Parts: sequence; structure tokens; C-alpha cells
Amino acid sequence: MEKERNREHFYVAGKGFKNLTITRDALKLVTERLSPRNRELENIPSSSALHRVLGENVISPVDVPSFDRAAMDGFAVRAEDTYSATINSPITLKLIEATAEASVRKGQASPIATGGCMPSGADAVVMSEYAKKALDEVEVSAEVHPTENVSRIGEDLRKGTLVLKRGQRLLPQDIGMLVYLGYEYVNVERRLRIAVLSTGNEIHDGPKVTPGKIPDVNRPTLINGIREIGCEPIDLGIAADEANAISKKLTEGLAIADIVLVTAGTSVGPRDFVPKVIDALGKPGLLVHGVAMRPSMPTGLGLINGKPIISLPGYPVSAYLAFVEFVPALVDEMLGTCHLPRPIVRAKIVRRIAGVLGSRTYVRVRVREETDGTYAEPVSASGAGILSSLVRSNGFVIVPENVEGYEEGELVEVELFRPVESSNENA
Amino acid sequence: MEKERNREHFYVAGKGFKNLTITRDALKLVTERLSPRNRELENIPSSSALHRVLGENVISPVDVPSFDRAAMDGFAVRAEDTYSATINSPITLKLIEATAEASVRKGQASPIATGGCMPSGADAVVMSEYAKKALDEVEVSAEVHPTENVSRIGEDLRKGTLVLKRGQRLLPQDIGMLVYLGYEYVNVERRLRIAVLSTGNEIHDGPKVTPGKIPDVNRPTLINGIREIGCEPIDLGIAADEANAISKKLTEGLAIADIVLVTAGTSVGPRDFVPKVIDALGKPGLLVHGVAMRPSMPTGLGLINGKPIISLPGYPVSAYLAFVEFVPALVDEMLGTCHLPRPIVRAKIVRRIAGVLGSRTYVRVRVREETDGTYAEPVSASGAGILSSLVRSNGFVIVPENVEGYEEGELVEVELFRPVESSNENA
Repeated sequence: MEKERNREHFYVAGKGFKNLTITRDALKLVTERLSPRNRELENIPSSSALHRVLGENVISPVDVPSFDRAAMDGFAVRAEDTYSATINSPITLKLIEATAEASVRKGQASPIATGGCMPSGADAVVMSEYAKKALDEVEVSAEVHPTENVSRIGEDLRKGTLVLKRGQRLLPQDIGMLVYLGYEYVNVERRLRIAVLSTGNEIHDGPKVTPGKIPDVNRPTLINGIREIGCEPIDLGIAADEANAISKKLTEGLAIADIVLVTAGTSVGPRDFVPKVIDALGKPGLLVHGVAMRPSMPTGLGLINGKPIISLPGYPVSAYLAFVEFVPALVDEMLGTCHLPRPIVRAKIVRRIAGVLGSRTYVRVRVREETDGTYAEPVSASGAGILSSLVRSNGFVIVPENVEGYEEGELVEVELFRPVESSNENA
Repeated sequence: MEKERNREHFYVAGKGFKNLTITRDALKLVTERLSPRNRELENIPSSSALHRVLGENVISPVDVPSFDRAAMDGFAVRAEDTYSATINSPITLKLIEATAEASVRKGQASPIATGGCMPSGADAVVMSEYAKKALDEVEVSAEVHPTENVSRIGEDLRKGTLVLKRGQRLLPQDIGMLVYLGYEYVNVERRLRIAVLSTGNEIHDGPKVTPGKIPDVNRPTLINGIREIGCEPIDLGIAADEANAISKKLTEGLAIADIVLVTAGTSVGPRDFVPKVIDALGKPGLLVHGVAMRPSMPTGLGLINGKPIISLPGYPVSAYLAFVEFVPALVDEMLGTCHLPRPIVRAKIVRRIAGVLGSRTYVRVRVREETDGTYAEPVSASGAGILSSLVRSNGFVIVPENVEGYEEGELVEVELFRPVESSNENA
């Protein structure tokens, strides 16, 4: 017990971490001191702009449709000519071919295809299904009212309407709209560049097995995490546990990237050079060292000349979870964007899970659907060293700062990053 | 009323659509007759395999860790030497440098870094924070038990364990794991190729304004929808409303793609060539024509020599929603994958929305967060011709077959495809 107390003491007010900062405060300390970024737009073909961040408001330059047009295949008519027509008592109209000169007159009908320009005189379209064509006549078996089956000029979009907003991520339908409005090219925000440095004497670039060395898991994981959030990774490689080597690489990163991430060496041990190196690089340096998050507590966040730098723990699970907690939110702040939340599923937790009061705890769970309900099983309680916990899980239970934990059998919300497993799959 | 009845009659048993098929049945009719696909694997660098579908089971070829190693920076010790040490009554150990030859003996401590190989004799690590180094001594202020702060051989993964399953989409952490296990390359499923053809005399490739023509919105939208679900789009261009032209293009598509999509001409009007063209291409042809879905009812699904072909309506909203309903699920069936559901938010619907009993209705809504709750506003009730409804909305309310609609003020589940708006944004 005394030992446990000692540790708690250390975590809360130990030499390296006098205070742990609540994660949302940690992020705010950085974002409120960010340098205003020089926005850089890229003008790219709209058809290749999927998921890019729109850099300008898009205003409709035209009315859509730009003319009254048929919304169905059928016959352009004067609506009043069809009144009282039913399937049992159809009315008959004279078939004509309307042109720019010859308009549709009383008692006439002119064939028209979906999207076709409404001939003058006509104000409605009788669908093919309600019209039987004879030689020079059309038998109409349902009445239409004025404007029925007609897309009116400007009905979809009025000229001058704000269609797409700066800061939104372009979805497939948005790209269709851009093309429709004649935007062959569109201005999008340049992707943020995020540089990644790994540190440590014991790591090397895989895959060859080297005695006493372990492959660097953090760079491939983080580089792909960066791609997943639509940013451009810059690989700074590995620096040995040596202040000059780390400093040189970070300086290089800060020169070319918008955000710099560095893993390992961020705690309070004898080899933990990173915090001091960051502070020596420029002002204000680390603003936060030690966050109220489990795992990933030793994380540091700072700014060098207005650019964010995040010092992530060396353990792959800690590094990636701190990335997940801070980087997408930071990118949103920098670009003025929002991201979709992860899908949530409610599941019964099969084993008690402990949070830490005052900290935000990421518990990796495996959610599966059984015939009698949805269950979440904590994948590992053995800490951040267990890399496989992130690989074997399909969701997080995030225990917030004010919750001590969840009891066995309690219903919890799981944020999914992979689909729920079905019990058959396990069989 | 009679007119309405006529129409209902038409929809349910009209000449083109004797029966409307429930969407999940429609998909099943296709998937249960699919030809077994010749699986084609690509061997690609693991570091570039983000979101690709794993084509093989990955078994751990090694124990992880492959040796007992330190989980913390500190000192390797014999745990029993530390028993009873506290911050007020530390114990003192002799500092040595353990080597392969010189093991840690009773009363000794050897410095060790996270990840370092545990020297023989030692069975635990005292963290730096609890150890004060003097000249040739270490003062230990907390006891450790055997294996404390040690990652034991195979603790994370045992050699021979199934780590990643064939059919899963690779996330950043999975790529980290592959690299860790020495998989420099990995076998992934070839991306499915999906060909897209637009038909119609009235459409042309934007952006130039051509009188009487409208830009083709469907191809750019669908091509990006295909990219979004991780498949490879093949652009077949535009064919005029003419059976031979459509047939030629579809034949071309079936030769190179795994799935073929064709838009417009799928209904029962005089220009609706597509269903007949598909039936003439091979067996069994269209299996379903007319689905119980609003919009997108005229959708057809079929197979030509074992390859799926989907005839989508010409209206961009109908085309895209039918794509959303059928194509991701079809791709999952063909690849043996699952996809994450869209995130769901519960919101109060601000206007009554009508479904159609027996049909699955996609209502486009705009969800916003107000100070007093979350509200969903139907974006347009004006049908599938209103392209902007997909662009201005951030979610779908999907009214299932057995529900008539939702009343104003009712709580509904919205499937989000963009973030919820906050009321500030609207201000």
C-alpha cells in the first residue's frame, strides 16, 4: 500500500510531472498560441479533390436548372387540357413536335425526354406511363397540374447561393456539384505536412533482425495515421539518444513541416533528452509536459516559433493513442475543419475496467455481437507495452476524467475503429 | 385521390415494375449467384498498405518480445533485494555493469534502458524515479516484485499466434505490427475495379456550357464514391441513348471490371434502353428491375456471366443513393470484408417526414446542434432531381420498409456523413 501511495505521489507530483494537464486544456494551450498560418491554396481538378478541404466558398454562378426542364420522360402539355383525365376516362391530345418556333397550344402534346427544355406554351409533363401514343394522337390517362414533372429554373439552386463552404471536406456528391456548376478546377487547402522523428538507440528500421535492436514501429504507424487524416507525412528517420542528433532532426522538421512529432525520450529518465531539446529550439518550447491520459501520460506539447511540436511516448500504443487524442483535433484547429466522430456502439463490458480519476483512459476492447447481445472485452490490462492490444481490438472505451471505471456487466459506449465481430466469425 | 391510387397502382404493379424488390433481397439475388472470383493478390510494401484488404492470415513468426526486456528506464535488480524499500527507508545496491558474462548478483543493480535485454540474474527493473545513483551505489526507494517492469518473452505475442486476419482492412497500427514482425511486404487483395458508364443524349462532359446539354454529374460523383470505398474506378464515358452504343460500352466494361455501373435509361420510358441491352449481353441478365427504395426505384441489378452489373437511375441523387445502398455491400460480399457503419446521432425532426410503406426511404437531412438539443431538418421534399439536397445535407434518415414516416418533433436516428453543424456556424 505504501508503495502504491508513493507511486500515486510520483504520478501526480513527481519530479518530472508536477502537474498532469487535462488533455483538452493541453490542446488549448497550444492552439491559442498558434501562429496564424499563411493559408496556401492549391488549384486542382475538381474530379481529383475527394476528401480535400475546400479553400473557398463556392457560390452558384447560375440558376439550376438554367431553364424549365422536364423531370420525367413523357409529353409536354398545357395542364388544364388534362383536367379530369383518369385511367377509365382518358382524354386525347394532338401529337405535335414543338420547336423554338412552334409552341404547344391548346389540345396539343409534344414528346419530351427527362432533362429536355420545356417548349413554350407547355407548363407540365404527362409521364409516359400515363400516355398512350397513337399515330398522331396521345391518350392521357391522368391529369397533371401546372409545373407537375417540370424542374423549374432555379428550383434546385438559385444563382448566387452559397453551395459549398470553405473548410468542408469534399464528398463525392460535392464533386458532382462542382462539375455541374462548371468548376473544372477548385481551390483546396494544401495538405498539412506532419513530420515524424523516432528516437532511441535500441530501435532500427526493420525488417532485418539485429541483436539488441527492435524494429521502429512508431514511424510506420504514425505515418499511416497521418495519411488517414488527410495530411502529408514527412519521415525524419531515427535519431540516437543524443541531444545534438535529435535537435538537428527536429530543426529540419520544423523548417519543412506544419507540425512535428517526435517519439520516445519524453519522460523523466536519464535518456529523456527530448523535452530539453525542444525547449532549446525556440520559444515558447514545451507548454505542457505530462498529460492526464492513460496511457500516454509522458506526452509533451509545445510550440516553436508558432509551430506545434508534440513529444510522444516511445511505447507504440502510447504514441499512437496520444496521436489519436491530439493530432486530428490540432489539424482541425489549424485548417478550420471538423471531423466525423467515430461510430459508437453500446456494449456490455465483460470484465471490470479501471480508469484513473482525473485522467482520460483509453481502454482497448474487442466488441462482438452474440445472439443475446453485444459484448465488449478489454483486450489487455497489461499497459501500453502490449502492441497487440491495438491490433486485436476494434474499439476504445474512453473512461473520462470524472469516472473511476466500469463494473463487469455495465453498459458502456465503445468508439469503433473496426466493424463489430459477429459470434460466427469467432467460431 | 383517384390519380394517387392510379399511381400507387403503377408503382406496385405498373408495366415496368410488376414487383418492387426489397433492397436486401435484391442484393442477395445477385450475391448468391456471383461467380467465385479468382482472387488476385498483390504483394506490396507493408508501409503503403493503409486501408488495403489483407489477403492472407498473418501469423507471428516470433515471440514478442523475443527476449525478456526492460519495460522502463532504470536498474535491473533481483526483486527480493528490494523488499521493504520505501521512500523513507531506501535500500542501497551496488552499481555494476552487467554483461553477457557478468550477471546481476545478490545486492547488485545494473543500469538498463527501456527495451534493453534483461541481464541474467536480474528479474525486475527499478524505475529511475525510484532509484538515486551515487558513485558506485544505487539507492532504491520502492520495492519491486519479480517481473515488475519487465516485458517477458512472448508476453505480447506468442510465436504462431494469428495476429491479423485475411479480409480485414489494414489500419495504421496493423501496419506498425507488420513492420514489427518483419513483414516488409504483405499480400493484399487487388482493388476491385468498378466501371461507370453514363447514358443520355442530353448530357455531356463539363464544364463548357452547351445549349440543350447538361453536364454529366453522375460519373464524377460515382467515380469518387468508388474511390471512397477503396475500389478502382474505370471511366467508360458517355453513351448516347442508343442500344448499340450502350451495348458496346458495357461489353468493354465487363471485360475489364469486376462490377459495372450504368446510369440513366433504366426506367420504363421510350428511351430506356438499358434493361434490354443488359439482358442481351449474357445470362442471367437483370435479376431485379425496380427496387423498393425511394428515391432510386428504377434501379436494376443483374449478372452477366457471373459479373454484377447495376443499372442506376439517371437522376444524380437517385444514382448516388442507389450506389450507397448497394455497392459497398456488394464489394464486402465479393471481398469477404466488412465496413464500419456510419456514425449515428439522435435528433428531433423539425418537419414531418413521409416514408412509403414497403419501401426504404432515404431522407436527406441537415443536423444541427442548438443550445436546447439536436435537430434534423429535411433538406428537400422535392424528389431526386434536387441535386443540392445531397450537398446541403449532413446525414440520412433512413425510413425502413415497415415505417410510414416520422412526425414533427419525433426523435430519429440520423446516419451522418458529415459532422453535425453547430448553431454558431449558422449564425
